[in-house]
Amino acid sequence: MDDKRILTDHVLRLTNALLNAGVEAAVISPGSRSTPLAYAFAASNALKTYMQIDERSAAYFALGMAKASNKPVVLLCTSGTAASNYHPAITEAYYAKIPLIAITADRPHELRGVGAPQAIDQLNLYGKHVKFSVDLPLPDEHPAIADFLDRHIQRAVSTAMTSPAGPVHLNVPLREPLLIDFERKIAPSTFVESVKGKIGLSEVQVNRLNDLLSNTKKGLFIAGELPVGFDQDAFWTFAKSLQWPVLCDPLSNLRSNVPADCRDLCIEHYDALLKSESFCGRAVPDTVIRIGAQPVSKPLTLFLSKAKPPVFVAVDESPEFRDSIGVVTHHIQAAPEALFNLKITSEHVAYKKLWISANEIASEVTAQYTGDLGDEGIIVKRLLELLPSESDVFVGSSMPIRDVDTFFSKTNKDIALFANRGTNGIDGVVSSAFGVQAVRKRNSFLLIGDLSFLHDVNGLAISRFQETDLTIVILNNDGGGIFSYLSQATVPNHFEELFGTPTGLTFEHIAAMYDAQYTAVQNADQFSNELQKEKTKPIRIIEVFTSRPVNVKTHRAYWTEIIERLDRNE
Amino acid sequence: MDDKRILTDHVLRLTNALLNAGVEAAVISPGSRSTPLAYAFAASNALKTYMQIDERSAAYFALGMAKASNKPVVLLCTSGTAASNYHPAITEAYYAKIPLIAITADRPHELRGVGAPQAIDQLNLYGKHVKFSVDLPLPDEHPAIADFLDRHIQRAVSTAMTSPAGPVHLNVPLREPLLIDFERKIAPSTFVESVKGKIGLSEVQVNRLNDLLSNTKKGLFIAGELPVGFDQDAFWTFAKSLQWPVLCDPLSNLRSNVPADCRDLCIEHYDALLKSESFCGRAVPDTVIRIGAQPVSKPLTLFLSKAKPPVFVAVDESPEFRDSIGVVTHHIQAAPEALFNLKITSEHVAYKKLWISANEIASEVTAQYTGDLGDEGIIVKRLLELLPSESDVFVGSSMPIRDVDTFFSKTNKDIALFANRGTNGIDGVVSSAFGVQAVRKRNSFLLIGDLSFLHDVNGLAISRFQETDLTIVILNNDGGGIFSYLSQATVPNHFEELFGTPTGLTFEHIAAMYDAQYTAVQNADQFSNELQKEKTKPIRIIEVFTSRPVNVKTHRAYWTEIIERLDRNE
Repeated sequence: MDDKRILTDHVLRLTNALLNAGVEAAVISPGSRSTPLAYAFAASNALKTYMQIDERSAAYFALGMAKASNKPVVLLCTSGTAASNYHPAITEAYYAKIPLIAITADRPHELRGVGAPQAIDQLNLYGKHVKFSVDLPLPDEHPAIADFLDRHIQRAVSTAMTSPAGPVHLNVPLREPLLIDFERKIAPSTFVESVKGKIGLSEVQVNRLNDLLSNTKKGLFIAGELPVGFDQDAFWTFAKSLQWPVLCDPLSNLRSNVPADCRDLCIEHYDALLKSESFCGRAVPDTVIRIGAQPVSKPLTLFLSKAKPPVFVAVDESPEFRDSIGVVTHHIQAAPEALFNLKITSEHVAYKKLWISANEIASEVTAQYTGDLGDEGIIVKRLLELLPSESDVFVGSSMPIRDVDTFFSKTNKDIALFANRGTNGIDGVVSSAFGVQAVRKRNSFLLIGDLSFLHDVNGLAISRFQETDLTIVILNNDGGGIFSYLSQATVPNHFEELFGTPTGLTFEHIAAMYDAQYTAVQNADQFSNELQKEKTKPIRIIEVFTSRPVNVKTHRAYWTEIIERLDRNE
Repeated sequence: MDDKRILTDHVLRLTNALLNAGVEAAVISPGSRSTPLAYAFAASNALKTYMQIDERSAAYFALGMAKASNKPVVLLCTSGTAASNYHPAITEAYYAKIPLIAITADRPHELRGVGAPQAIDQLNLYGKHVKFSVDLPLPDEHPAIADFLDRHIQRAVSTAMTSPAGPVHLNVPLREPLLIDFERKIAPSTFVESVKGKIGLSEVQVNRLNDLLSNTKKGLFIAGELPVGFDQDAFWTFAKSLQWPVLCDPLSNLRSNVPADCRDLCIEHYDALLKSESFCGRAVPDTVIRIGAQPVSKPLTLFLSKAKPPVFVAVDESPEFRDSIGVVTHHIQAAPEALFNLKITSEHVAYKKLWISANEIASEVTAQYTGDLGDEGIIVKRLLELLPSESDVFVGSSMPIRDVDTFFSKTNKDIALFANRGTNGIDGVVSSAFGVQAVRKRNSFLLIGDLSFLHDVNGLAISRFQETDLTIVILNNDGGGIFSYLSQATVPNHFEELFGTPTGLTFEHIAAMYDAQYTAVQNADQFSNELQKEKTKPIRIIEVFTSRPVNVKTHRAYWTEIIERLDRNE
């Protein structure tokens, strides 16, 4: 039984190397070729394993976990199209900079390209959407192999974790028989650890930036999506010294936990303000500093694109800094925390006050916003108001993230928002939310549209194999709500057929299938009542029936009121 | 408005080129970037369009259509992970040799790699799993472009259709604004058509084969999966002249419509027969001819692998002929029909009778098979017996295709079977079945396990946008049934956790969600009754509750009986 011993050593070695590199969790989809690794993962006390039948959902679940933990998460599947199903989440992980370790079992060479079942060409399967890809050797006793494998796996995980983080792919060929020896132990790795530094700035570089920025008269700070673990206290200390208005994207998570003495600096209603042409004219900055990803707000993007400030500093650890409108003038390749060493002296009270007073106007309008029957904005507003502290909200792409941007007013509560903004897909959102919850175990919510919920309805299957605790708010406007705001809506031809795409589906049956607590609500008061009721089951679904035409009307009325009040105050 | 005119001409040109190349249908998933093409497709009377929200299911639906029609089917999606979701079906299409034309809308160059939303690197997205991939130019008035595009699109479709057929990828960058002029017409293509020949054999080659095969004493003909349109009449005329036993894989579709004078030559129970060691000893052939894919049966694979007949002729149009066990001695690169010109004179009555009499024994045992409460074999047997003529059955991977192999006895009825055997995935099966039905519009059935049904439950969403007519038989054994037959089942460690994976889910709620006719049945008689009742809704679901342990027991008893009766008759 030498083969069995060699196979066992091989998979134990891979497992140990993953653990040594900091992996704590693996998401497994059932299959035959992956058996030896699945056994080794399940038998390891140090590795927490999760099962998910649908590999597409499995990968998005792992992505949610990795996003919430800033730790590498392993995926394991069998050979064939199982591996292809990982591709959407791997694509998102690449652009969202999330460390996934995708492990695909494969046939040995003699079964590749010969028509064997479940055999596809898995080498470089994910193309340019992984940072590293390797086809491992078959289990082998050769003395060169053991240590190489051990170190190579850890190198792969280290690559995934290095900024900009991202997915890597290990293709693992295994030959039958696929059974292992559960009694066997192997020696620990000779490689001990990888200590990860951060990209910082030298004193010379800091001084240059101080010089560049200290002449600022109209400075605007923009915070896009920031990773879990970003030091908010240090940020606000810096912001306080800077005294620039800070435009806080909802995913910066800087709208929560705002310190009292920085409250006025936190500007969260810029999306509405920048719909006013006259405000845009008055608000042109001479200098912008941006940390994190590009914000969600389209009016902000248009404003910056038109304003083209002479100094636009993007602080981004990635060499491919994000700038889809060509406005960045200085790319500072460093962790955002490197900025906190800056001592920028600039005086521009009028410009700051312009933003603060405009933001207050928008705050008042937002506070009084009641929407209308069928409106989604009021639901989102109520949700954010009623959330207990220590809540996490995963926010769906398309309309939910935009409504959160509009209606999430700054708060002292500890609320963290998450979304898949690497590629902004509506796919995989349910699974990603469960992944975040599995790691953080806080009061967990998912805010999602009906098409996006349907797309990843299999995300719910994770609840069949492990504990879950999630409240899902589905905004059901029966189709693609975002298109009502786009130019397609101005053309009657084929609109409902191609863009509205009403499915007529509701989700009480899905709730019953997964034994979830379910309520359908028709208006904001019903929604508030429902949300405050006790959650009695692992999954609670609140389906809110809304209307695409009402939505457009109420949102436009809201923006118009802000624009008019801004203009009156000019 | 020159931009609008140029954009309109561009998408009309692409649409016309696709139509000219033989495309008749397009499956569209909603999105913004793909708007101009979606408009052009929807506005074309010649192109039938289908909507599916989930791109993964959309691609498998298109695959089913292309498989059933032998015609190229277009897929259209927006940019981003939408495109990644096509990957599983594209992988299957590549190995199953199905002509899909995947069209992915993309951002223009200035929005690539700069952090723009829904922008991923779509060039060569599907790697080696497409036959051809191109990034088209942006809409352009340059005189070189129009004719190039027109011809290049048709060349791409022609490539997809050339044997071995397969998917191609057209990446189509489009710049905003995305609206077109619906009134505009363009001149027809200057390229007229592509006439496709077939790979045939010269007289010299035919004579060489006649010489090679005419010394045969123990000739065995194997027919694997054959494409729609294969000339069965011509085949049986040839088989009658040959007088070799013909092992008919269920997907050869040669078990149906068998002419009376060839009935004895059609051997369908070889999977059971070849579980008898003594029969295997007696049945070793000196010559094998195989057409179509490698058969489903694992005992047949093991038998051939051990027997290693001195002459093994595989007729396969693909240069990468399928031979996962290294037994092929002669690869005839031609369409299977080329064989029909052969005139092979060989006399081996004893060998033929050996197979025919053994097959009769297995037929009797199969005819008397009643299974046991919880058995799936008896359900599959009843289904196949009760099907009306002119029925199509899409068969799920894993256990259903194996049970069909075992329990589908030859018949005079016209029953066509389909399955995704390119990579044998359990994903996308529901959608593929709907795709076959959409094209053939016969009495349509899907036979599928619970995990596979769950995996592609979104396949049902196709019914929200077009007419469907499908009876779905779900064999619900609560988990992964096939693993009970594999070596994993001999090891108690982690079996249910990693392989059994019982979800505890049933599907009456999904049926309600999609307004499908639904019945749960517990045994074969209930199943038969239910199947014979009137179908009253577009989708009918019959969920059969079965048992993994009973299944193993009943199947083993069936095989044992055949083996014992074969041994007694030796």
